[in-house]
Amino acid sequence: MKTFTKIGALATAATIALSGWAAAETIKIGVSYPTPTHAWAAGMNWHAEKAEERLEALYPDVDLILVNSPDPSAQASALEDLVSVHQIDALVVLPFESEPLTDPVLNVKKSGALITVVDRGLSQPGIEDIYVAGNNPELGRVSAEYMKTRLKDGDNIVVLRGIPTLIDNERFDAFMAEIEGSGINVLDHKHANWNRDDGFEVMQDFLSRFPDIDAVWAQDDDIAIGVVAALKQAGRDGDGMFVVGGAGMKETIKGIMDGNELVPVDVLYPPAMIATAMDVTVSAFKSNGPVAGRYILGATLITPENAASFYFPDSPF
Amino acid sequence: MKTFTKIGALATAATIALSGWAAAETIKIGVSYPTPTHAWAAGMNWHAEKAEERLEALYPDVDLILVNSPDPSAQASALEDLVSVHQIDALVVLPFESEPLTDPVLNVKKSGALITVVDRGLSQPGIEDIYVAGNNPELGRVSAEYMKTRLKDGDNIVVLRGIPTLIDNERFDAFMAEIEGSGINVLDHKHANWNRDDGFEVMQDFLSRFPDIDAVWAQDDDIAIGVVAALKQAGRDGDGMFVVGGAGMKETIKGIMDGNELVPVDVLYPPAMIATAMDVTVSAFKSNGPVAGRYILGATLITPENAASFYFPDSPF
Repeated sequence: MKTFTKIGALATAATIALSGWAAAETIKIGVSYPTPTHAWAAGMNWHAEKAEERLEALYPDVDLILVNSPDPSAQASALEDLVSVHQIDALVVLPFESEPLTDPVLNVKKSGALITVVDRGLSQPGIEDIYVAGNNPELGRVSAEYMKTRLKDGDNIVVLRGIPTLIDNERFDAFMAEIEGSGINVLDHKHANWNRDDGFEVMQDFLSRFPDIDAVWAQDDDIAIGVVAALKQAGRDGDGMFVVGGAGMKETIKGIMDGNELVPVDVLYPPAMIATAMDVTVSAFKSNGPVAGRYILGATLITPENAASFYFPDSPF
Repeated sequence: MKTFTKIGALATAATIALSGWAAAETIKIGVSYPTPTHAWAAGMNWHAEKAEERLEALYPDVDLILVNSPDPSAQASALEDLVSVHQIDALVVLPFESEPLTDPVLNVKKSGALITVVDRGLSQPGIEDIYVAGNNPELGRVSAEYMKTRLKDGDNIVVLRGIPTLIDNERFDAFMAEIEGSGINVLDHKHANWNRDDGFEVMQDFLSRFPDIDAVWAQDDDIAIGVVAALKQAGRDGDGMFVVGGAGMKETIKGIMDGNELVPVDVLYPPAMIATAMDVTVSAFKSNGPVAGRYILGATLITPENAASFYFPDSPF
């Protein structure tokens, strides 16, 4: 109860007492995220289930309740149920979208529950007690840093960007800042929307316009798959060009382990971060250390040397 | 072994294999910090021992080795021993000073161990895998935010600062930025070096120069003790003035619980962060989630409503 109420710092004394009471028996933690409709989200679901098994085995008094929802309003309803039906002591939430989930999460907070937000922020600051997310500027910077180890002054690259969002801007701006002054030319950059088909089309366009490309920053493993398909179709996959994606898709990592020269590295932005968020949230009830705060994961460069430790063959991603 | 090698991303394959081998039997984690010569450090030592007990009970294959050192060169030797004698798989270190400990910590990293740095950064970026620290700008901002809830346009405050350091600047600048535009006058600010005696002297000077002071930002619980002593000696502790310190000293927190109007709140910068760092480091070997990254703890406002959960009566701090 001590470590629990420690966290509900902004809740009123009354609601703390109430939740603390429930926590004295079983610690109920809701984990809410979008229904896995694409590979990254499916990987997240897989890692959340793995973390549930592991944490419930470790702590018999911890009950993790995993719920996925197909759209923002369904997720809002799921959050209401987690409070009214399950009377959760804490919530780990990856919001479908920021705006429509802000008030529902605020209502969970008002019930006295500890709030951990994963990956996507809410529209209003200060609601979450714990924030766990990847590092988008660092993903861009680490990617550019790798480019600089492989390329020289006068070499040419093209850049495929994600969906026009703050995340994409952060990645792109940090990449460009790191490339600046290296003498490497960025021939063009276009949005490929974190999508294989768009990656294919954008890369086809780049290939038709630029006869001399030394490397491609695709930013994302799905885009990179489209890029590689375009290179192969054009017969330009054998001329020493290389592609850098991002996320840590298992097929990409397997390729790195196998020495794939076309996609030789990857930069981590892992769906397993949901497990990290579940760990930290459980710690709030179990540790003598404080846990409220912001946890920004590193964007580790995945190379043949370390790839095996990021490879989860049973995960869908 | 998987989760271990995941983290040693920058180590070479050879050293990973070596440490991974050791980790397969018992996971040895060194925890190195300065000998507790003042209260905050004594609190850290107490929380490190509590976390050791808790984590070793939870995981029979985890061995935490706590070492404290009286000066930077002793800490450098202790780090060498942790590698050569104990062959640690990971190190949690609160460096005595940044500069003299940077190379010693780098050498531990080269042995293949995971590195977690707590509270004080090293002089060279990129050595640590995990960084756990308090939030100095937030401590300043939260303190000013509280001032604004208690004071009105035209009210007067004085500010006592810490030792002239980056930490002090971060706290002070964020405090001033939050106060700006409120109409609250900052009559003067002077360094009191996170020290009771200096706090007493600086406050005596302020009291002699300023007849009308509505509140004091002391930034630190030790300084605040000196400030309160000066107020009492001058007989000005009863005129509605209040003092805001910082850290989370147990006597301060007890006072808040008991409704002390002179020091009604505190802002958290807790020595228990060593326990948080130990938790996260153990997770690197046990979790399916990634843990490499930066963990910046919140600067929670401690009020009568939540003080009980930050009160550790058995801790020396």
